[in-house]
Amino acid sequence: MSDLFWPGDHRAAGLLDDAALLAAMVRVEDAWLGALVSAGVAPSEAAASLSGLVGPSDLADVSASAEASGNPVIAVVAALRDRTDDATSPWVHRGLTSQDVLDTALVLCLRDATTAVVADTRTTLGHLADLATEHRDTAMVGRTLTQHAVPITFGVKVAGWIDGLVEALDAVIRDADDLALQVGGAAGTLAGPVELAGSVEAAVSLVDHTAATLGLPASPPWHTSRGRLTRFADSLVGLADAEGHVATDIATLSRSEIAELSEGHGGGSSTMPHKSNPVLAVLLRRHALSAPALASTLHLAAGTTVDERPDGPWHAEWAALRDLGRRSVIAAGQTTDLVAHLQVHAEQMAQTLATAEGIDAEQRSMSGLSGRPASESYLGAAHHLTDAAVGRARAAARGDVP
Amino acid sequence: MSDLFWPGDHRAAGLLDDAALLAAMVRVEDAWLGALVSAGVAPSEAAASLSGLVGPSDLADVSASAEASGNPVIAVVAALRDRTDDATSPWVHRGLTSQDVLDTALVLCLRDATTAVVADTRTTLGHLADLATEHRDTAMVGRTLTQHAVPITFGVKVAGWIDGLVEALDAVIRDADDLALQVGGAAGTLAGPVELAGSVEAAVSLVDHTAATLGLPASPPWHTSRGRLTRFADSLVGLADAEGHVATDIATLSRSEIAELSEGHGGGSSTMPHKSNPVLAVLLRRHALSAPALASTLHLAAGTTVDERPDGPWHAEWAALRDLGRRSVIAAGQTTDLVAHLQVHAEQMAQTLATAEGIDAEQRSMSGLSGRPASESYLGAAHHLTDAAVGRARAAARGDVP
Amino acid sequence: MSDLFWPGDHRAAGLLDDAALLAAMVRVEDAWLGALVSAGVAPSEAAASLSGLVGPSDLADVSASAEASGNPVIAVVAALRDRTDDATSPWVHRGLTSQDVLDTALVLCLRDATTAVVADTRTTLGHLADLATEHRDTAMVGRTLTQHAVPITFGVKVAGWIDGLVEALDAVIRDADDLALQVGGAAGTLAGPVELAGSVEAAVSLVDHTAATLGLPASPPWHTSRGRLTRFADSLVGLADAEGHVATDIATLSRSEIAELSEGHGGGSSTMPHKSNPVLAVLLRRHALSAPALASTLHLAAGTTVDERPDGPWHAEWAALRDLGRRSVIAAGQTTDLVAHLQVHAEQMAQTLATAEGIDAEQRSMSGLSGRPASESYLGAAHHLTDAAVGRARAAARGDVP
Amino acid sequence: MSDLFWPGDHRAAGLLDDAALLAAMVRVEDAWLGALVSAGVAPSEAAASLSGLVGPSDLADVSASAEASGNPVIAVVAALRDRTDDATSPWVHRGLTSQDVLDTALVLCLRDATTAVVADTRTTLGHLADLATEHRDTAMVGRTLTQHAVPITFGVKVAGWIDGLVEALDAVIRDADDLALQVGGAAGTLAGPVELAGSVEAAVSLVDHTAATLGLPASPPWHTSRGRLTRFADSLVGLADAEGHVATDIATLSRSEIAELSEGHGGGSSTMPHKSNPVLAVLLRRHALSAPALASTLHLAAGTTVDERPDGPWHAEWAALRDLGRRSVIAAGQTTDLVAHLQVHAEQMAQTLATAEGIDAEQRSMSGLSGRPASESYLGAAHHLTDAAVGRARAAARGDVP
Repeated sequence: MSDLFWPGDHRAAGLLDDAALLAAMVRVEDAWLGALVSAGVAPSEAAASLSGLVGPSDLADVSASAEASGNPVIAVVAALRDRTDDATSPWVHRGLTSQDVLDTALVLCLRDATTAVVADTRTTLGHLADLATEHRDTAMVGRTLTQHAVPITFGVKVAGWIDGLVEALDAVIRDADDLALQVGGAAGTLAGPVELAGSVEAAVSLVDHTAATLGLPASPPWHTSRGRLTRFADSLVGLADAEGHVATDIATLSRSEIAELSEGHGGGSSTMPHKSNPVLAVLLRRHALSAPALASTLHLAAGTTVDERPDGPWHAEWAALRDLGRRSVIAAGQTTDLVAHLQVHAEQMAQTLATAEGIDAEQRSMSGLSGRPASESYLGAAHHLTDAAVGRARAAARGDVP
Repeated sequence: MSDLFWPGDHRAAGLLDDAALLAAMVRVEDAWLGALVSAGVAPSEAAASLSGLVGPSDLADVSASAEASGNPVIAVVAALRDRTDDATSPWVHRGLTSQDVLDTALVLCLRDATTAVVADTRTTLGHLADLATEHRDTAMVGRTLTQHAVPITFGVKVAGWIDGLVEALDAVIRDADDLALQVGGAAGTLAGPVELAGSVEAAVSLVDHTAATLGLPASPPWHTSRGRLTRFADSLVGLADAEGHVATDIATLSRSEIAELSEGHGGGSSTMPHKSNPVLAVLLRRHALSAPALASTLHLAAGTTVDERPDGPWHAEWAALRDLGRRSVIAAGQTTDLVAHLQVHAEQMAQTLATAEGIDAEQRSMSGLSGRPASESYLGAAHHLTDAAVGRARAAARGDVP
Repeated sequence: MSDLFWPGDHRAAGLLDDAALLAAMVRVEDAWLGALVSAGVAPSEAAASLSGLVGPSDLADVSASAEASGNPVIAVVAALRDRTDDATSPWVHRGLTSQDVLDTALVLCLRDATTAVVADTRTTLGHLADLATEHRDTAMVGRTLTQHAVPITFGVKVAGWIDGLVEALDAVIRDADDLALQVGGAAGTLAGPVELAGSVEAAVSLVDHTAATLGLPASPPWHTSRGRLTRFADSLVGLADAEGHVATDIATLSRSEIAELSEGHGGGSSTMPHKSNPVLAVLLRRHALSAPALASTLHLAAGTTVDERPDGPWHAEWAALRDLGRRSVIAAGQTTDLVAHLQVHAEQMAQTLATAEGIDAEQRSMSGLSGRPASESYLGAAHHLTDAAVGRARAAARGDVP
Repeated sequence: MSDLFWPGDHRAAGLLDDAALLAAMVRVEDAWLGALVSAGVAPSEAAASLSGLVGPSDLADVSASAEASGNPVIAVVAALRDRTDDATSPWVHRGLTSQDVLDTALVLCLRDATTAVVADTRTTLGHLADLATEHRDTAMVGRTLTQHAVPITFGVKVAGWIDGLVEALDAVIRDADDLALQVGGAAGTLAGPVELAGSVEAAVSLVDHTAATLGLPASPPWHTSRGRLTRFADSLVGLADAEGHVATDIATLSRSEIAELSEGHGGGSSTMPHKSNPVLAVLLRRHALSAPALASTLHLAAGTTVDERPDGPWHAEWAALRDLGRRSVIAAGQTTDLVAHLQVHAEQMAQTLATAEGIDAEQRSMSGLSGRPASESYLGAAHHLTDAAVGRARAAARGDVP
């Protein structure tokens, strides 16, 4: 697979793509069938594994037939029933509805993507902790509204990046953990499972069994309560924001006139070999500019949901989740690479600071007011803030629970 | 104040409007000044109260002069300094930057709005718990993709509404609690406060004192880490989604041909007196269609943040937060009224169900598979799900911590 | 009126605010009543002017009662009927529906806002034509992906600004001209007007008469075809984009390290008097970050329209149009001020260019390929492009039809 | 290629996908090289055709290397230079910049997609003209705010659909025609082409020659003036809105309780064979809910553009354009199928109308006022409006210029 329209796409290979979704759908059907057999609802002869019965070579057919029913599940079920043995066939998908399978499959794929996002972001935080520590005393100009303001350190700037990333990562982890199994049946009452299993308790056991098999939390049906998805999507956008903030700072400080930072592997130009473009920063900014729109689509879907399963909003979710999830994986990896190879030009920072006009104006004003002589530097709590952020970054990098 | 462009606006009277923001800015300046004096950083003669020195009659002037500096804080500070006594004047706003004051003032206003949102949503959940209980056995048709599917109860439909609202309310409360005091000084290093107070510890004490005065959590400066705001905004949109879901269901089930629900106080028409429009549902749907765009603006601002304070993104936040906050208050009140007076036409539900073609098709298929006779109803775990949701609604209505 | 949340708001005073909308609604009712009387549909005694019968002092009442019916028209009509004479009263609003009145009133207000936007943007284009002419030969560094690339002129940079603004202005004018009268009656069939007037032809004459009175094009009813509004809104966002582009360039080139441009009236800082913030550029960037979301709300409303008049989408349009319209007026004025007082530091441009590393790399590569000696400068068609853009700017400033 | 996340994706096979983009990039390079040779700028031995030198088998490599330079052009150029003969190789891409090639390639792909969209929408309009004609007299209930209001005809409802689609199609055609060749060189001054060709006039000739070869209008460089793209994208969203309106009406009127319309090929359900879901309407609603967000990303890119080529906004455009373009093709085809096979249940319409309570209330009110007896029907100008819309639909279906 390639995506010329989204450079960096190879970083999400195998995650949240068609093959992964198809495999996840089969996994859901298999887990449910296993629960039916295990509980004795289906006979023990219906115990054939569905794994591998439908796969990548079916993608074109499943995709083409998805339009006729509005979603790809029906074609997958038909193929599974067709290819498994006669004893198993009638029990495939029994009690489920298409949305159960597709929602759960998406959740499985989103969780895999999250694993990659979390791992990379933890690595990033480790690098940033190193960077902040190394540059705890690297003074530079602070800029507000594009203008030189007062001195800061590069360490405390990195501390700000850390804060944004740590908070965003915490939210991603929290909200990914809340992504749950979907089993509701045709109208979210579990009527099919109850009818098959003979009692509410037995039906709930089927759900719990399936959840355990898939490693997902059980939940009341959430066919029409889409908050789990919107919260998770919002968290991914929050991470995109934090990455976009880092990238925008780096792109800005890489400007030829500023030159306080540069990307280790800046991208070249065919006819301008002197250029070293901040390519990863640019690609991360692209993601930050694009991600909010995807989450807004999910919110609109959630807020216009109707009936027991809605007429369009649900269908709008899939591609938005796919794009947001894959791009989050890509961006997390790009952020790791960006900060791992970031070149800090401390001498340039020092020179800019030394020649910045008016940079001590505020300090003189404060000192005049306090009646004390001006302190040697004017870095305030920069060290204190840096150290605290480094501590948070180290903890997050280790995976400590917030 | 009026807003012909957003019917229902009167419900947010006094919340997040210009007067409230102005008062909150003064409150922040007053709290900070109090901290300076209390810590002995400012002399005890600088203890004049700033409260009331600037007020509603200043709005036009402050607003007009806000353009010249890009934000309204400078004009407020100038007026405070001009109007307080000579001993106090030099100490007003010392150590702060405009963003400290405006961010914290917005947070104070957002928290007031949240109080109203939470109270109304708890009341709503109480009503919904009653409604679900009353209609625990009211059978009706379940609809998927606009078509009759299988039976459900009105109770379990309300359970779905409850789930969405409870989850969304939990998130609003959690994220509002995270809205913090902003004190960072010119470039987020607390340089001014440290210079005034003589040490990092003393500066941090000033921050803590101010936080305590205002009833807000302290925090490292978040000038460029806007996750607190985006998470809170996302939560409000999540609540809008849950309300939009309820409203869309009600508008749909109020259709003349369905007529299973109607608003207690449906809006009339000047020349069609027979009509009873689902007006509150319509206005809630308006909010659900509009809210995601506001949160996306906040995310874009967060993701394009640059430097120690950015050149535009911050300024884009204020109106988006104001609109989202006020509309959330309005919508929460409208939702309460909507569900409090909702008329449920159980006889119509029964009649539709009785005549729904094919409504027992799935049950017959399940029964054929299980080999057991079909159960009397086909309501699955509807009662079980309803009872559990009612329990969650009662707990949320009481304000139990999730 | 003030708006602390949107500095610059005073620039849109009297445009698209509550009082203007109310006045426009009365104007629509008055024009329709005039048409009824003029055509002999209503008796000549029903000819009382409605002008001024409802006004600013009614805003609070009308606004509060708007929630009950879902829109403000019913309360306005009730007040008009109550306050006019007995002969006129029964004929007020006859044949119209609320949406006819509100849509047309919005159109009237949007046209007034457009007049201001167009006038200011034409003035801006005149200034830019002067600027491009003055700096036709002012060489500077061209930057791509934040890095020095090849030389350009400031004139050709301004030419790029001109192109964006001219195209955007053309679209605004074109799409504003398409904003039409709305008269459709209860369900868009003109049934009421036909019944009153006795024939389709007579009803169409009423519509045409009203259109002529209000200076609007007539149109088939567009209750559910909202393309006129979305196209107009898109054009305003297009203008915001063009302004945002100019503003982002100016904010960037105003950076302390670049200092090639500065705002004539840069905003100050309370404790950092050396700073000259690019305030207008910052406020324009705010608008460019916020405007796309408003247009997306209008599109969502258009795309979820249903029935003869929909249950929420229409209601979501009003505030989005108001905000987009007012902010467009504000931004147009800010852009005029920004470019009128822009300070161009040509000596700094020259110095940066003279010291830019590798800035002649591409030229050397081209020259090696062509076998000709390198030309004196490497400005390509900069003059040609500048002159052409200046011509377009002058034509647009004069109001020539594209 | 498949897309399980967007059922119907096969309808856009070969349009705006990776292979098409790659082919278009080669086509642009080939046309430019042809212009260089034809003008004698490059020697006649440099006339090798580039066509086919890079193709589908290169996609994985090109895509993977796109991240290093931030876009796929550099890898394509490298492969072309590597694979063509020695005389041609040095002249490949000379004078162009990556953005020239990618922008123009996207434009070529967008135009191909537009051709499909226009053809299908014209077919749709032909079907709708037939439908409106057939049902010119089919009376039905008009509904406003979900409630029965006054009578309409199905013909006049279709007329409303036509109006929306015709206007939207006109805008798509107009804005696609404005998509132009991009040739600006490194910083948009045509410096490279001028240096190579020896004069501005000769360079402009190269541009014109290339435009003619590719069948595109020439234009001043638009590297930073992105209005062409945003206007085109807005028009596609406008079409999505018009389709979403049709689809929402059809989904609503297909509800089991209303049953006035049904899709000819309604989608089934695995366990509920009685169901006939309005699948195409559902998938079109998905598109209408998703499209506005994509256009908003393009606007944000346009409004944050900076320098001679920007650091992220440009990169955010590609996938948004791709998705919007492909989905527009899919939706146009789905709309054609939807209306071609739409089943109209006129007898159900008649029955609903006959039993609609209060449906004549407005008419009685009007009649009382006019003093004339009520007319037989109360359909107003429905026929007049229908006939006019049918005329517009026929003209648009024929491809008459608006």
